[in-house]
Amino acid sequence: MENVKVVSYGIGVIGRRLANHLLTKEGVEIVGAVDINPAIVGRDLGEVLGRDKLGVVISNDADRVLSETKPDVVVHTTMSYLRQTYDQFVQILRHSVNCVSTCEELSYPYATEEGAAYAEKLDKLAREKGATLLGTGINPGFLMDTLPITLTGVCTKVNRIYVTRQMDAATRRIPFQKKIGAGLTVAEFRRKIEDHEITGHVGLEQSIKMIADALGWRLDGIRVDPVNPVVLDHDATSDAIKVPKGYNAGTKQKAYGIRGGEAIITLDFRAYIGAPEEFDSVVVDGVPPINERTSPCVHGDHGTIAMTANMIPRVINAEPGFKTMKDLPVPHATPVHMRKYLK
Amino acid sequence: MENVKVVSYGIGVIGRRLANHLLTKEGVEIVGAVDINPAIVGRDLGEVLGRDKLGVVISNDADRVLSETKPDVVVHTTMSYLRQTYDQFVQILRHSVNCVSTCEELSYPYATEEGAAYAEKLDKLAREKGATLLGTGINPGFLMDTLPITLTGVCTKVNRIYVTRQMDAATRRIPFQKKIGAGLTVAEFRRKIEDHEITGHVGLEQSIKMIADALGWRLDGIRVDPVNPVVLDHDATSDAIKVPKGYNAGTKQKAYGIRGGEAIITLDFRAYIGAPEEFDSVVVDGVPPINERTSPCVHGDHGTIAMTANMIPRVINAEPGFKTMKDLPVPHATPVHMRKYLK
Repeated sequence: MENVKVVSYGIGVIGRRLANHLLTKEGVEIVGAVDINPAIVGRDLGEVLGRDKLGVVISNDADRVLSETKPDVVVHTTMSYLRQTYDQFVQILRHSVNCVSTCEELSYPYATEEGAAYAEKLDKLAREKGATLLGTGINPGFLMDTLPITLTGVCTKVNRIYVTRQMDAATRRIPFQKKIGAGLTVAEFRRKIEDHEITGHVGLEQSIKMIADALGWRLDGIRVDPVNPVVLDHDATSDAIKVPKGYNAGTKQKAYGIRGGEAIITLDFRAYIGAPEEFDSVVVDGVPPINERTSPCVHGDHGTIAMTANMIPRVINAEPGFKTMKDLPVPHATPVHMRKYLK
Repeated sequence: MENVKVVSYGIGVIGRRLANHLLTKEGVEIVGAVDINPAIVGRDLGEVLGRDKLGVVISNDADRVLSETKPDVVVHTTMSYLRQTYDQFVQILRHSVNCVSTCEELSYPYATEEGAAYAEKLDKLAREKGATLLGTGINPGFLMDTLPITLTGVCTKVNRIYVTRQMDAATRRIPFQKKIGAGLTVAEFRRKIEDHEITGHVGLEQSIKMIADALGWRLDGIRVDPVNPVVLDHDATSDAIKVPKGYNAGTKQKAYGIRGGEAIITLDFRAYIGAPEEFDSVVVDGVPPINERTSPCVHGDHGTIAMTANMIPRVINAEPGFKTMKDLPVPHATPVHMRKYLK
């Protein structure tokens, strides 16, 4: 069976982990790599990944890579916002190439007017070019949207949905621990929030809007609380960072889908060093009531890499256009030759 | 907006509950009812449901009902095996009408050669007639197949899957409690098993095969253990049935998807009076490992009714043909006007 040919667009932290994973997968072949980082452009992807040479040179010329390699799909892991990634998707789609992206805002652009306008243009282009575009990942993309939506399928009535993700940041990579301001004083943390150096989780609005649209709920609005520090009454520590009592251990943030002055969807996101339990939970106040919990929580990086790789066949099989997780058949692992999952 | 017109085919316990639920739903109209039970044929469906008259007379002539009412979809809740229901599906599809059925074997007929042959014929007919047919329900249909499949989407590697459903039968309807032989001596229980009066859960093979096919796993075989009694070391009781210590409290049954002499998929089904906890759980031995639990377990009848009603728009929207839950977009609740979910 022929391999599925993939171009890796974005060779940052997630892009490298994803590429390493794809290289272990039967029936997947990385035929090209794109990044703009001058430190790695012109180098062999295998070497950058700390492996043997692959004969794939990282290029900053996406058009050329796509023309020369004619891949079945691009896996795209560059940035979080559509205003940063829109031109990249246009470029990929113009080559009539399918794309699975971890761009958080792409997971459900309809959360904002600006995003909806981007989505409309991307959908039109994708249809014209016969390609499929999907935004996915573990969160947004699964834990706080696709999974709660799926679980409501067993309900005859849904009043409210409450989704929690609680992570012990000590189990995550050090850049993530720094990103959430672990080990800072609360004053330092607040200054970094003001300076947009700490931004909190990207995707809460998108997840809420995806749930609401799947259920047909019209919301009066979506409210996202400011990112809050987490101050523990005891010392906590990771391999890399000490968080003395009274210092900031990480972030917590809630977001709400509001109707009639009431939060009918609540997303409750917590990531800090020293969290007493790691879990993902979905509580549906409905008939029957649903009280679902995954413990420990799904590891963020592993989960995002898995979702991106596992959605490749769903995206190749789909009708052309821009798709979201709620439009495609249920996700699944892809442990055998990738071609086996193609229609 | 126009209502979605539904014919209710099968007015037994589940059919009645489903009809009662559909009557509460905005944008759904029951336009016809079919059953062969002489005690209710010719009676008004509303009256049989213990409500006001609906002007819908229960008929044993499905062809006539389908011709006269031209529904958008049939909800079908008659029997568990395709050899019992095949002719009914042929009849429905010949009218070019979509159908959502709770027939357990239809949820994934490919588990047996006989089932696969039925599925092939139904798929061909459905395509010819431009209609869509789906088998679903809470189990099979969701808890032990669609949900585990969906959860593997976050895994880069899957070694083994273990799914458990543990129900306290005391919370279920009395016919269910009798169906599992609660309150019998173990000898009486075994005799009823031999006489096929107690059959255990229908659908374990189907769920295993659906998981294996979604993941692309080739199995050496599927093994279904005999239905076993559950004997407690204490008295247990429901509203209706006493289970003295040493008597049978219900059933337990396991089924395995085998490869290389090893169970890579295990379904562990337990329903008995006095179960210490009600839960549904999915454990994936993989990367990352997944340990998911819904507690209490999803109520079987509510869940089946919900899944059947909620899949109506997915089935109407789908391409013609015979579909299974793994082929269709993720399920979701349908709390607003049913027409809102249609393309």
